[in-house]
Amino acid sequence: MLNIGLLGAGRIGITHAKAVQALPNAKIAKVFDPIDAAAENAIALTGATRASVDDIMADDNIHAVIIATPTDLHADQIELAARAGKAIFCEKPVDLDAGRVRDCLKVVEETGVVLMVGFNRRFDPSFARLRAEIDNGSVGDVEMVQITSRDPSAPPVDYIKRSGGLFRDMMIHDLDMARFLLGEEIVSVYATGAVLTDPAIKATGDVDSAAATLRTKSGRMAVITNSRRATYGYDQRIEVHGSKGLVEAGNHRTTSVTVANGSGYTAEPLMDFFMSRYADAYRIELTTFCDVVAGKTSNYPSGTDGLKALLLADAALESLASGKEVAIG
Amino acid sequence: MLNIGLLGAGRIGITHAKAVQALPNAKIAKVFDPIDAAAENAIALTGATRASVDDIMADDNIHAVIIATPTDLHADQIELAARAGKAIFCEKPVDLDAGRVRDCLKVVEETGVVLMVGFNRRFDPSFARLRAEIDNGSVGDVEMVQITSRDPSAPPVDYIKRSGGLFRDMMIHDLDMARFLLGEEIVSVYATGAVLTDPAIKATGDVDSAAATLRTKSGRMAVITNSRRATYGYDQRIEVHGSKGLVEAGNHRTTSVTVANGSGYTAEPLMDFFMSRYADAYRIELTTFCDVVAGKTSNYPSGTDGLKALLLADAALESLASGKEVAIG
Amino acid sequence: MLNIGLLGAGRIGITHAKAVQALPNAKIAKVFDPIDAAAENAIALTGATRASVDDIMADDNIHAVIIATPTDLHADQIELAARAGKAIFCEKPVDLDAGRVRDCLKVVEETGVVLMVGFNRRFDPSFARLRAEIDNGSVGDVEMVQITSRDPSAPPVDYIKRSGGLFRDMMIHDLDMARFLLGEEIVSVYATGAVLTDPAIKATGDVDSAAATLRTKSGRMAVITNSRRATYGYDQRIEVHGSKGLVEAGNHRTTSVTVANGSGYTAEPLMDFFMSRYADAYRIELTTFCDVVAGKTSNYPSGTDGLKALLLADAALESLASGKEVAIG
Amino acid sequence: MLNIGLLGAGRIGITHAKAVQALPNAKIAKVFDPIDAAAENAIALTGATRASVDDIMADDNIHAVIIATPTDLHADQIELAARAGKAIFCEKPVDLDAGRVRDCLKVVEETGVVLMVGFNRRFDPSFARLRAEIDNGSVGDVEMVQITSRDPSAPPVDYIKRSGGLFRDMMIHDLDMARFLLGEEIVSVYATGAVLTDPAIKATGDVDSAAATLRTKSGRMAVITNSRRATYGYDQRIEVHGSKGLVEAGNHRTTSVTVANGSGYTAEPLMDFFMSRYADAYRIELTTFCDVVAGKTSNYPSGTDGLKALLLADAALESLASGKEVAIG
Repeated sequence: MLNIGLLGAGRIGITHAKAVQALPNAKIAKVFDPIDAAAENAIALTGATRASVDDIMADDNIHAVIIATPTDLHADQIELAARAGKAIFCEKPVDLDAGRVRDCLKVVEETGVVLMVGFNRRFDPSFARLRAEIDNGSVGDVEMVQITSRDPSAPPVDYIKRSGGLFRDMMIHDLDMARFLLGEEIVSVYATGAVLTDPAIKATGDVDSAAATLRTKSGRMAVITNSRRATYGYDQRIEVHGSKGLVEAGNHRTTSVTVANGSGYTAEPLMDFFMSRYADAYRIELTTFCDVVAGKTSNYPSGTDGLKALLLADAALESLASGKEVAIG
Repeated sequence: MLNIGLLGAGRIGITHAKAVQALPNAKIAKVFDPIDAAAENAIALTGATRASVDDIMADDNIHAVIIATPTDLHADQIELAARAGKAIFCEKPVDLDAGRVRDCLKVVEETGVVLMVGFNRRFDPSFARLRAEIDNGSVGDVEMVQITSRDPSAPPVDYIKRSGGLFRDMMIHDLDMARFLLGEEIVSVYATGAVLTDPAIKATGDVDSAAATLRTKSGRMAVITNSRRATYGYDQRIEVHGSKGLVEAGNHRTTSVTVANGSGYTAEPLMDFFMSRYADAYRIELTTFCDVVAGKTSNYPSGTDGLKALLLADAALESLASGKEVAIG
Repeated sequence: MLNIGLLGAGRIGITHAKAVQALPNAKIAKVFDPIDAAAENAIALTGATRASVDDIMADDNIHAVIIATPTDLHADQIELAARAGKAIFCEKPVDLDAGRVRDCLKVVEETGVVLMVGFNRRFDPSFARLRAEIDNGSVGDVEMVQITSRDPSAPPVDYIKRSGGLFRDMMIHDLDMARFLLGEEIVSVYATGAVLTDPAIKATGDVDSAAATLRTKSGRMAVITNSRRATYGYDQRIEVHGSKGLVEAGNHRTTSVTVANGSGYTAEPLMDFFMSRYADAYRIELTTFCDVVAGKTSNYPSGTDGLKALLLADAALESLASGKEVAIG
Repeated sequence: MLNIGLLGAGRIGITHAKAVQALPNAKIAKVFDPIDAAAENAIALTGATRASVDDIMADDNIHAVIIATPTDLHADQIELAARAGKAIFCEKPVDLDAGRVRDCLKVVEETGVVLMVGFNRRFDPSFARLRAEIDNGSVGDVEMVQITSRDPSAPPVDYIKRSGGLFRDMMIHDLDMARFLLGEEIVSVYATGAVLTDPAIKATGDVDSAAATLRTKSGRMAVITNSRRATYGYDQRIEVHGSKGLVEAGNHRTTSVTVANGSGYTAEPLMDFFMSRYADAYRIELTTFCDVVAGKTSNYPSGTDGLKALLLADAALESLASGKEVAIG
């Protein structure tokens, strides 16, 4: 039985806890959350006991931690857990500052523990199959990846202020996905953006609509388009064009119902919440983490993947400001 | 150059004339229509000369006729043309009375001329490809054919009175299609129906909604559903299920546009007019007729096909009245 | 807390147990299954205790039972539970013999307990939305229901021998769905069928391919097509045509991925197992049962619904034999 | 009757001639082509007489010309026709050199004749409807246009050498479409590209795969992706995202047939030839030109539209070389 300490029992922490509880060989054993109601909710769900971070780190019976606390605590808690020899699952990002991430990853490397970063979309069955089709040669050599990623609506402006903005909190998923699918490291980034949906976002210095173009050394390209608003639901599509053909993942709906009349054929809007759209992905993600800890697979998004996606987001921001392609280290 | 005499220059006659004029080796040489405006329209379009039926039949320079006159003239004109040695394309049906059709076909047989009946849907590229897929083994042995055929709106009640009703003027296309796709002759028919869309149709003794089930000797089945009204356009779909799989032909639209918003994703209604939905079919049908006359193909809906479809329609009517399967032949 | 006794801990019993365990106010308290491994599996999952049927019936602390035992035990166990005052969820069918069902329902009626029959498809989100669209007037007056229902492959011949055959074990779901969607009671049934997929089925006296046409008093129709085999997955589609338009539920896939190359655009086969295709339906079904017991809803498939579907299946069998429409009730 | 002189009777000239001949009030009266077979083909089709360019320009009975000659003759012939007072339809581009285009447009402006440039895609029913939906407010304020445009296969390398390359011969259609749909002039262009499909293209200095990002003053964006090769057909899709929703035009196929089996559901590849994919567009384009000449509409792609698209293509080339956004105008 893999005993896991849960750090942070908010919405996403609870999602992970449920995924763990459904597994036969893992359980949430201890829960940390400074908010009583959150901790108690997690305890009711899992039968875990409440604990402090220090207690969790000191407990030799805890083999792994799930870090689902606010972003600014991630790096410190990763270091604590690494030094305590725990396997670590951490929600993205490790930190908004690339330097801090680098320092943190050094500690992880020294301690040799597993650090898996929460790029949940890699585990979505549709997107995972894109990668499988690439790996099995369906599309030949990858040439261009097109990612359309539009949120139903913008998060609160307060969140945007501390999230690092569209490139670091939203496009970062797409940047990781581009890396996941391109099959080569990205060498340059161009990005542009604008505030088109909500003037309040302008005041934060962020954009709400953006487009980015990435290139690899051999000339493979990825094009990402983002918007903070899509009236028709959560628009999440990917196309991978290669020398032999195309593989694409379309959007998801709750039902397969269409109504037809004189106005036409109307299918329902898309699923409109990331936690329902990616419900399978979250579940498979934690299952994979437990498999990683059990040594069953070594295929997972690492701390380095987290750092590289952040560096791409930083490059996109720099390109937005300069109007130039930015070379990646 | 194949010289064709056009009998009847109404809407469908003009459609056929245009198809002929687009061919390099055929032309409409003479036109018969008692209505001056109709005849003149056809003449302006084709450069043909106006003529009587007798004149067309007597003209050795006319090799073929297209019969697009009212239904009650078809059988007589087929016999005239057959005796004059002309190849014949005749709009369906040959006649509403199966006995009259049999007599007419006897004359055709005696004279040895080509008689092609206007089951235009066999030439629709989508439906023709269903047949091609069956012929090339894509679905294995055919097991069940499902035909959905719904008109945008009912014809005038006056038309229904003299058309022979839903089974003889509308389902007859589907009955022919079932024969075309089943790969075996039909041995029994069950049909039911009701008046659901327009009480005025009830007064004619006809139905406006119907379902029929056909069986072949080995147990292959076809299910046909019809309605005189579909608010969302002209609904024309076919599925062929076989031992190895399914081949299906979906509906057609004028554009590929979808509008998405909070109400969902809306595609435009279906094409809503049989002459636009089957525009390609009508063109290919006449091209095929000219190829038949030129000896390039012998694959076409014959007078016997017309008779068999009519017998199935008659059986469906009998079944509607009796509530029993009706054996064929 | 609603305490439930589970009778039968096979595959479907476990599915129901999981659905119950996910609810905050209900739990499986006792489990009956004569097979040790099955009972122990259910106990490990739920924390319930093992018990005999008598013990469950005698336990005043058990408020409801889920009957997921072999079909021939259903009616007896329903009567026992009814007399013990338990709310009852019973897998379909109540019994294969309509007379036995009638007797059983009499007991249920006398005792006044809830009896919900497991027509799980009514709870599928897509099919439930068909009904909701009908109820909210989207399609106007219902005119024709078209149900396509094809299994990926036939069950073992041994199962077919004791299941009552295609009409009673497979089409019965579609017959209930037709009743659910037509909005009027069915007054006549026509059915035909054949053995097309597997000669071994012929020896059982059953068919493996069938088509049925149902009519209501006002002339509404339903057409059902069934096959025991579909190479491309579990084909489950419904169309409801009405005076104002059409509402249809399409098939479901696991991913939204398409691969395109010179051979065309290929989407994956359909979900091919009823327990995954209807996973949501099973979960919602049991949630609804608990809501029914809690008095939150009285909208559920009753014992009478179970009887009526069985009577339609019997009528279909009679029609298959006679080649005639069979009047109901 | 509008008498038209056709300059150039190659494939595209013949397409235009057929469109004109189908109109009741226009005809090709004279044909110029130095190649006898081409000219004779056009004459057989139209009944026109053969003539020199000078003869056509001098003929007062010729009201308009269609210029479908090689690109390097366009500008001279436009000037001749303008000075002769003819309305002009000219295939794109007016010239590959923006300076030459400007000089030519000055002559057109001085003479006041109509000059319509052959951006045929504006007349495609699906793309025209995108514009109509924007104009009727369906999507609110336009925010982002996404254009996917992939050819089935690259033209011969010899053609690429003199065509001006991917940006000037292929993306130019998409650049015009972006202008057509954005509703604001473009102020900056970023483009990148690579040779991924055929090394022979590299030798020409051109690319075969490209991505471009365009911006308008208010921040609206367009993203264009191009490839010279698509194994699955001619991929032509457009999405227009706005404040109220999305309108998109999908791909087109010849039939609506799908084959389903254990490998999945396969729809046929896309139409794979621009002249069939855009057959309607070519026809409507020439109809519109005749309407423009007849004063029925003043809505058409002008010489200035041709110049602006060329300037965008030039800017894309400059951006490809510099790695920077290039400001327009």
